[in-house]
Amino acid sequence: MSSFKNPVTEIFNIDFPIVQAGMIWTSGWKLASAVSNAGALGLIGSGSMYPHVLTEHIHKCKAATTKPFGVNIPLLYPDIEKHIQIVIDEGVKIVFTSAGNPKTWTPVLKKHGITVVHVVSSSLFAKKAESAGCDAVVAEGFEAGGHNGREETTTMVLLPAVRDAVKIPVLAAGGIANGRQMLASMILGADGVQIGTRFVCSDEASNHINFKEAILNSKEGDTMLSLKKVVPVRLLRNKFFETIQQAEASGASKEELSTILGRGRAKKGMFEGDLNEGELEIGAVSSLINEIKPAAEIVQEIWTEFNSALSNPLHHNKI
Amino acid sequence: MSSFKNPVTEIFNIDFPIVQAGMIWTSGWKLASAVSNAGALGLIGSGSMYPHVLTEHIHKCKAATTKPFGVNIPLLYPDIEKHIQIVIDEGVKIVFTSAGNPKTWTPVLKKHGITVVHVVSSSLFAKKAESAGCDAVVAEGFEAGGHNGREETTTMVLLPAVRDAVKIPVLAAGGIANGRQMLASMILGADGVQIGTRFVCSDEASNHINFKEAILNSKEGDTMLSLKKVVPVRLLRNKFFETIQQAEASGASKEELSTILGRGRAKKGMFEGDLNEGELEIGAVSSLINEIKPAAEIVQEIWTEFNSALSNPLHHNKI
Repeated sequence: MSSFKNPVTEIFNIDFPIVQAGMIWTSGWKLASAVSNAGALGLIGSGSMYPHVLTEHIHKCKAATTKPFGVNIPLLYPDIEKHIQIVIDEGVKIVFTSAGNPKTWTPVLKKHGITVVHVVSSSLFAKKAESAGCDAVVAEGFEAGGHNGREETTTMVLLPAVRDAVKIPVLAAGGIANGRQMLASMILGADGVQIGTRFVCSDEASNHINFKEAILNSKEGDTMLSLKKVVPVRLLRNKFFETIQQAEASGASKEELSTILGRGRAKKGMFEGDLNEGELEIGAVSSLINEIKPAAEIVQEIWTEFNSALSNPLHHNKI
Repeated sequence: MSSFKNPVTEIFNIDFPIVQAGMIWTSGWKLASAVSNAGALGLIGSGSMYPHVLTEHIHKCKAATTKPFGVNIPLLYPDIEKHIQIVIDEGVKIVFTSAGNPKTWTPVLKKHGITVVHVVSSSLFAKKAESAGCDAVVAEGFEAGGHNGREETTTMVLLPAVRDAVKIPVLAAGGIANGRQMLASMILGADGVQIGTRFVCSDEASNHINFKEAILNSKEGDTMLSLKKVVPVRLLRNKFFETIQQAEASGASKEELSTILGRGRAKKGMFEGDLNEGELEIGAVSSLINEIKPAAEIVQEIWTEFNSALSNPLHHNKI
C-alpha cells in the first residue's frame, strides 16, 4: 500500500495523502510524531504555544520520528515573528499557515526551502495563496472545527471550486473522518485530506479526556458555527455556547460578545476539561466518531477504508 | 448506459438514479416531464400550486410523458388533504413528502399503492420516516436550497449517518449539481441523488429568467441560511436578504421577522423576477452553475460525468 503516489505524497514525501491538522491544545509532538511514523503527515499546532514551548515540541518531535513532519502557524498569532524564526532556525521542512494573509510570510519561508501550505475557505483565497507562492492549499469547508470562513461554503461545494481555481495540489478539510469521506473529497477534486476532529480522539492528542469523551457522546447538530460577529468558530454545544447564542439572538454587539468570550476559554475547555465554561472547538464530523485509539491505528483504518472504497466505489448500494 | 440498476432505479423504474427536486414556482409539468423523458425522475413541485393547478399540471405531465414521474407535497401545505386526494385520484405513482411528519400521510398514500419518499435533515428523522413506512428517504444537507434543517448538518457528514441509520434506499441532496458530486455522495452512502438548483437553470423551469440569470452570476458565499428564528431557508443574497440579516443581527423576534417576510415573497422573487424584494430560494451549489440549458442535456451531462468519474475516480490527481 505504500506505493501510492500522487501530488500530495510527493510534495511531503509521505506514504499516504493524509495530513493531521495542527490543532491548539491538541497536536503537540506526541500526536504529530505518531501520525508521521504511521506514514501520514503530522503537524504540531503552534497556535496555543509560547515560542519556547514550540521549540521544545519541535526538538521532541525530531527525537521521536525520522519521518517528515510540519508545524501549523496561525498568521494572526501575536508573536508571529518568533514562531517563523523558530521553524527556520530549527530546519522544519513543512509549514502550514492559516488565519491570515499568506503574502507576508510565504516568501520568507520559501527562501529557506520550506514547503508552505495555506488553509483557505474559498477559491478566491486559494488563488491568492497560489499567487503568494504557496506549494499547496487546504480547502476547508464549513463543517470544519475551530476557526472558519464567513462564506459558509461546505466541502461538497468548495472542493470543485478550489480545484478549478488553482494548479497547485489541494487538500480537503472539513467533514472528513473516514476513508469513504476521504475518497469522496478526492473525487470532488482534492489530492489528499487534512483531518482534525478524528485525531482529537487519539491516545496521543494532548487535549483533556473530558473533551475526548464529549466528542464520543456528541450527536448530529451538536456542533454549530458560533461567534460570527467576532470570528466564526465551530464549537461543541455546551453552557458557554448557549450563553453566546442567547447573546447573539438578542442582538449583542461584537464588543459585548468579545467580553463574554474573554481570554483562555479554549484552554479551559479543550486542555483543562471544563465542559461547561470552556470553548470546545471541534468539527461537525464529531457525531460520527465513537472510539479513542492510537493515531497509527486511525491512519491505517482511514487508508484501508479508502482503498476498499476505491476498489469498489458503489459496493454498498449494489443490488 | 441504461443498463444501470440499483435500489433507486428499481423503486422508481427509471434509467439513472437521478431525481429532479420538486421546487416551488419552478418545477411544473414542463420540467418534470422533460426530466422523466430523459430517463431520470421528474417531480412536480405542488407547494406553490392551488389544488386545481396541481390537477392541471398532473394532466399535462401525463400527456407529455409515458415515463414515471412524481409529485412533491410539503406536508405543512394548508390544503394538504386536497393535494393528497388529488394524487390518489389521479393515480400518481410516486410522491415525495417534505417539511412535516411523515406518520400521518404515508400510510394513506401507501394504501393506494403509491411509492412514498420523505425528505429528512438528520438520521433521527430518517429512522422516523422508515418507521412510518416510507420506501426511501432524501437526506438533505445544509447546502440545499429552500427550507432546511435546524441542525445544519452538511451532505458530507449527513450521508454516512443516514446510510447507517436506515435500510431503505437513500437519496443525497444538497450541494450536488454535477456527476463528480453525484459519485462523491454515492460513495458517502447514497443510492442516488436529488438535484434542485441545477434544474432551476433549465429551459423548462417555470421560474423567472431574472432568477436564472442571478444564479449564473452568483459566486461562493452568495447564498446563506436565513430566517433561522422563523424557519431556516437558504436564500440568494439580495436586498430582502440583507433586510432580514440586519433585523436578525439586532435581535429581531420571530414575530418581527415574520412581519418583514410577509406573504408572497417567494413568488415575487422566483416567479415574478423581483431580484430586490423577492425571496430567492436556491442551493449553495449555484456558484458552480454557468449555463441555462434543456433539462435533458443536464441529465445526460451529469450521467456521463458520473460514469467517467466512476471509471477513473482519481483521474484528476494522477501524476
